[in-house]
Amino acid sequence: MPTALFIIPPWLDLSAVAIGAIQGAMFSGRLKEHRIDLLGVTIIGVVVGLGGGLLRDLLLNQLPAAMTSNFYLIVAAAAALGGMLLQRAFNRLGPLIIALDAVTIGLFGAIGATKALAYGVPVVPAVFVGVVSAVGGSILRDMMLNLPIALMHVGSLYAVAAGAGTILLVALASAHVDITIAGIACVVVTTVIRLLAVRFGWSLPEQRAIGSWMRWRRS
Amino acid sequence: MPTALFIIPPWLDLSAVAIGAIQGAMFSGRLKEHRIDLLGVTIIGVVVGLGGGLLRDLLLNQLPAAMTSNFYLIVAAAAALGGMLLQRAFNRLGPLIIALDAVTIGLFGAIGATKALAYGVPVVPAVFVGVVSAVGGSILRDMMLNLPIALMHVGSLYAVAAGAGTILLVALASAHVDITIAGIACVVVTTVIRLLAVRFGWSLPEQRAIGSWMRWRRS
Amino acid sequence: MPTALFIIPPWLDLSAVAIGAIQGAMFSGRLKEHRIDLLGVTIIGVVVGLGGGLLRDLLLNQLPAAMTSNFYLIVAAAAALGGMLLQRAFNRLGPLIIALDAVTIGLFGAIGATKALAYGVPVVPAVFVGVVSAVGGSILRDMMLNLPIALMHVGSLYAVAAGAGTILLVALASAHVDITIAGIACVVVTTVIRLLAVRFGWSLPEQRAIGSWMRWRRS
Repeated sequence: MPTALFIIPPWLDLSAVAIGAIQGAMFSGRLKEHRIDLLGVTIIGVVVGLGGGLLRDLLLNQLPAAMTSNFYLIVAAAAALGGMLLQRAFNRLGPLIIALDAVTIGLFGAIGATKALAYGVPVVPAVFVGVVSAVGGSILRDMMLNLPIALMHVGSLYAVAAGAGTILLVALASAHVDITIAGIACVVVTTVIRLLAVRFGWSLPEQRAIGSWMRWRRS
Repeated sequence: MPTALFIIPPWLDLSAVAIGAIQGAMFSGRLKEHRIDLLGVTIIGVVVGLGGGLLRDLLLNQLPAAMTSNFYLIVAAAAALGGMLLQRAFNRLGPLIIALDAVTIGLFGAIGATKALAYGVPVVPAVFVGVVSAVGGSILRDMMLNLPIALMHVGSLYAVAAGAGTILLVALASAHVDITIAGIACVVVTTVIRLLAVRFGWSLPEQRAIGSWMRWRRS
Repeated sequence: MPTALFIIPPWLDLSAVAIGAIQGAMFSGRLKEHRIDLLGVTIIGVVVGLGGGLLRDLLLNQLPAAMTSNFYLIVAAAAALGGMLLQRAFNRLGPLIIALDAVTIGLFGAIGATKALAYGVPVVPAVFVGVVSAVGGSILRDMMLNLPIALMHVGSLYAVAAGAGTILLVALASAHVDITIAGIACVVVTTVIRLLAVRFGWSLPEQRAIGSWMRWRRS
């Protein structure tokens, strides 16, 4: 197993956190029926920006990255507040935000899967850690906002995109491909699948649809 | 304190995970008003099958067992998908599934409590770890599905059965009884209490009922 | 960075846990539409009393304090049951409970922030750990009861009070002030802000209000 981490420059890591936090703040800003205050928006922004990494490090039994430096929390909180104050401007940048977010999922997935491999975790849980790193922030967001978890419902290929990217990464790493190349491949594949899914409205079959198909075969 | 683990054969451990995952998938399959897709059903299956063990290892500050081998996640995901596709067949096996599930709670409780004792945790938190191992999967399931947590509500003796079993186990272990015998006693007691509770509709008093009894005494 | 912990006597630590647990039990006792049983009330009490410390130790990658002694779980469970049975009496003590609860938030915040500093965590995440220690129990409570998280909504200065206290503590500790004095300052500031907020109905601006102010400036 490779022991190298997929190292990305700190500015890129913090940018991914900031994009997550902006998305989180914009998301909670759209919940008009909830009376969320300034602090609540900041919390949700921080949770979306840092939650995936936090769950990753809990799964790997490591000190969470956000505990090792002042920058993660400062960037996440500032981005969340910025995302709330400039919501109008960011709303007009919709497609750009979606594209940046797709890259962010890919980056979080690649960082998570390689960190798992570096700590000696086998390939299947390494893929799992990668996917949780990528989508964990949005799962925690929905749990804290008391909403159905978006990615378990029809119409979202978030986790599938992250899964495809991290499976490719782990396969390439097992074939001794350089970890930087494997990481970039993961980011590209995740981004492309996510953007195609948004563009063409792809979704997984609903569990109910499968049920009726089973019933139809039986009758 | 004993340092021996209650070791069960890998096939039994993985069978317990599979039964949990099948139950989780069947449970989410009954939620007709939620539009859960294939991925959502798999996630819930994996959470029910592996969530108890994950919470156990977080409480004990250990690398989660599911991170140490490829098998846990593969078995849980496969069982969840199987549970969804064969829902009709499994529904007809209702009583068998309930019985297997009762044994599974007992096994998870025994594994959790002995693991806690083996790491030097005192007896009261060791019982707590055992109970969390047994019922943690279903708590996480309800939190992720945005449902009231089943075991906090009237009509479920899940946690009580697990608590009785693990208290017995810890008492026997403190009396230097062989850990395998203590573990088997835990599984048997948990299973019997759970099955009797299902059969005779036992439940804990409701908090409101206690309230009115207090009011009645005062008047 | 200081490496000293803010050590408080065990009876004070356990009293804080007990006050949290009583509050949790009283809170779930007011939820008449939920049919929570005895076990559910105990679980919520334990979660409120011990949840903040549990999240603190997960963030710091340490064995949770509640796993190191029999007392934490016994005190939390007993206080929760007491809080439920004596709900009427405690309701009449409302102002006293609010005051004790404000001190408890301050104590949990001081313990959490100093523990983080003692493990070498930088100042910003140390403040974060302090705030999570102080308010984490009530966040977990709301997530488990399937309620909107109280502290993210208008009208609560819980987290702000804890934040102000822990920021002061970390600033004093960085200036090499004795940790006991810094800890007491944290408790006093947190308590005073929380009580003034309750007394004068202070709250943070609502995210919607900021939105309409932005709109007004634009028009």
